[in-house]
Amino acid sequence: MPQTQTQNRRFVLAERPKGEPTSETLRLETAAIPEPGPGQMLLRTEYLSLDPYMRGRMSDAPSYAAPVAVDAVMEGGTVAQVVASHLAGFKPGDWVLSFNGWQDYAVSDGAGVTLLDAGMPHLSWALGILGMPGFTAWAGLTQIGAPKPGETVCVAAATGPVGATVGQIAKLMGCHVIGIAGGADKCAHAVNALGFDVCLDHKSASFAKDLQAAASKGIDVYFENVGGVVFDAVLPILNTGARVPVCGLISQYNATGAPDGPDRMSMLMGQILRKRLTMRGFIIFQDFGHLYPEFAKAMGDWLDSGVMQYREEVIQGLEAAPEAFIGLLRGDNFGKRVIHVGAEKMIENKGMQK
Amino acid sequence: MPQTQTQNRRFVLAERPKGEPTSETLRLETAAIPEPGPGQMLLRTEYLSLDPYMRGRMSDAPSYAAPVAVDAVMEGGTVAQVVASHLAGFKPGDWVLSFNGWQDYAVSDGAGVTLLDAGMPHLSWALGILGMPGFTAWAGLTQIGAPKPGETVCVAAATGPVGATVGQIAKLMGCHVIGIAGGADKCAHAVNALGFDVCLDHKSASFAKDLQAAASKGIDVYFENVGGVVFDAVLPILNTGARVPVCGLISQYNATGAPDGPDRMSMLMGQILRKRLTMRGFIIFQDFGHLYPEFAKAMGDWLDSGVMQYREEVIQGLEAAPEAFIGLLRGDNFGKRVIHVGAEKMIENKGMQK
Repeated sequence: MPQTQTQNRRFVLAERPKGEPTSETLRLETAAIPEPGPGQMLLRTEYLSLDPYMRGRMSDAPSYAAPVAVDAVMEGGTVAQVVASHLAGFKPGDWVLSFNGWQDYAVSDGAGVTLLDAGMPHLSWALGILGMPGFTAWAGLTQIGAPKPGETVCVAAATGPVGATVGQIAKLMGCHVIGIAGGADKCAHAVNALGFDVCLDHKSASFAKDLQAAASKGIDVYFENVGGVVFDAVLPILNTGARVPVCGLISQYNATGAPDGPDRMSMLMGQILRKRLTMRGFIIFQDFGHLYPEFAKAMGDWLDSGVMQYREEVIQGLEAAPEAFIGLLRGDNFGKRVIHVGAEKMIENKGMQK
Repeated sequence: MPQTQTQNRRFVLAERPKGEPTSETLRLETAAIPEPGPGQMLLRTEYLSLDPYMRGRMSDAPSYAAPVAVDAVMEGGTVAQVVASHLAGFKPGDWVLSFNGWQDYAVSDGAGVTLLDAGMPHLSWALGILGMPGFTAWAGLTQIGAPKPGETVCVAAATGPVGATVGQIAKLMGCHVIGIAGGADKCAHAVNALGFDVCLDHKSASFAKDLQAAASKGIDVYFENVGGVVFDAVLPILNTGARVPVCGLISQYNATGAPDGPDRMSMLMGQILRKRLTMRGFIIFQDFGHLYPEFAKAMGDWLDSGVMQYREEVIQGLEAAPEAFIGLLRGDNFGKRVIHVGAEKMIENKGMQK
């Protein structure tokens, strides 16, 4: 069923997943399109962003943001169009970056909603290279990683929207860049299209050894977005004084308990001490929101001049979102995954864009 | 046998300890007093500092500094007097801060040796409040912890030379200060003499609960110098955005392997991410050496004005050093532990000094 002008399709959280989300985790409902009241506007979702952090919102474990309530609409960033507005500054037809969640329509009072330039070449990029993932990459790398020219920067999920951007910015900063990705195709893309110096397949049996060989001078900045076996391989070869911005741990989001022992927590503390490591977790807008204009200017210039590559996977139809999200957590995506929620139309080939 | 002018007593590393050092770890030898050559001077040790980091030097596990070789003199910071000098800038009778190690006499070319003001009230303080431990406390707290007035600062080994200084500086910065120490006497001292708001006994069965109650607004800065059960109790109540300078992990220095599982390393990474923690290991002179003059000025003023308390345990005789060091790792010390290596004389009661 496509998007219509008569009803609101929405995915609500049916139950909190134990481990990997399943087809039972989210429930598709239809409801009336809500009416905007005074000081409100009605937004129609064109694109829905799929991001790893959404797994955290499905759980009620303590985190930096409240969980989505059971039976409430699943949260998510969206590119949307104003349908009706009783709100100064927004008029029908305007394009906005908003947080409609996983549904066709949402009412908003404008809080957290940003107008988009309708002339931008790809509206959906506001959910990726020009939005949260791109800003995360830029701020984590420049503000926490702070690599110097000639230093070695390592990042996993190297063809994802964060990893690809981290590596490309690090190259622009004069660093030696080691990517890590799942599979030969992604690794080839990271080197050939994105310009990484090397990219290693974490699914290879020799991965830890390969990484040690590739990082012959050790690692000065490890941009942490996955955790798990990648972090296990990186930790022993971090250099003294290395910096580890921590923006995600996708490999452990579906974990249902702590892994078996031995307990390596004290070993990690010992490494932090002996190697004088800096590890810092960050949530992009809370920590670095004030730097967004600086990021937007830099990234806009890089995209305009053609030195920055960006890859998207646009999947048609809201109904496809749950399966696409489950696949995202498994690393099935190749580039930034967004759902085109609007009615079907020719989707340009987004395989490689700049 | 006291210090003499005819021979050099020295402790060499007899074997690398497995777990806790024993009476077999170090071996007392006597040798001829070395002769200073051109460009060298002969130093006589008056005080030897005992510090937890020395346990690391006994092991050959990778660390930030090379291990002491088996059969080599054990390393250590010292307050010493120049006996003979072929070196410009140093003359017989001068007092210096040096690294003679665990022995009566050492030859030096002046590298790393600092002249001390012979008029300073307590020469041994150059090994404590005015030296490495005091500087570690000041720099870790102000440069990494960076607490704001009203924030809660927590530090363990609260009556040790680092912890006591951290807590007192944090009070001067307007913070709520929670100390952790082993036993009622130390806790009473931290509150009554040092001015901590509260001090908890980590040996108490209700320690984790007591800490939770004392930190009713959570912990903003945890100055890590012990690890182990203290860190276990602190981690769950760290606030979002908390800072954790890591200068030591004394509770795990004697560990012979990783503790049993479950493996909590991924849990720690998850906490760093979700709470946006900053954890940073540091080695004082490598990371902050350029700030030493600023520290010395601030600490000198605090001591002169009487707002800073300092407690020392001076133990007579080089022979007592191994047992005193083993006890230090167990937390037996109450204040900064130094060995008076010079010939016995009346040692003033150092129970409480300012």
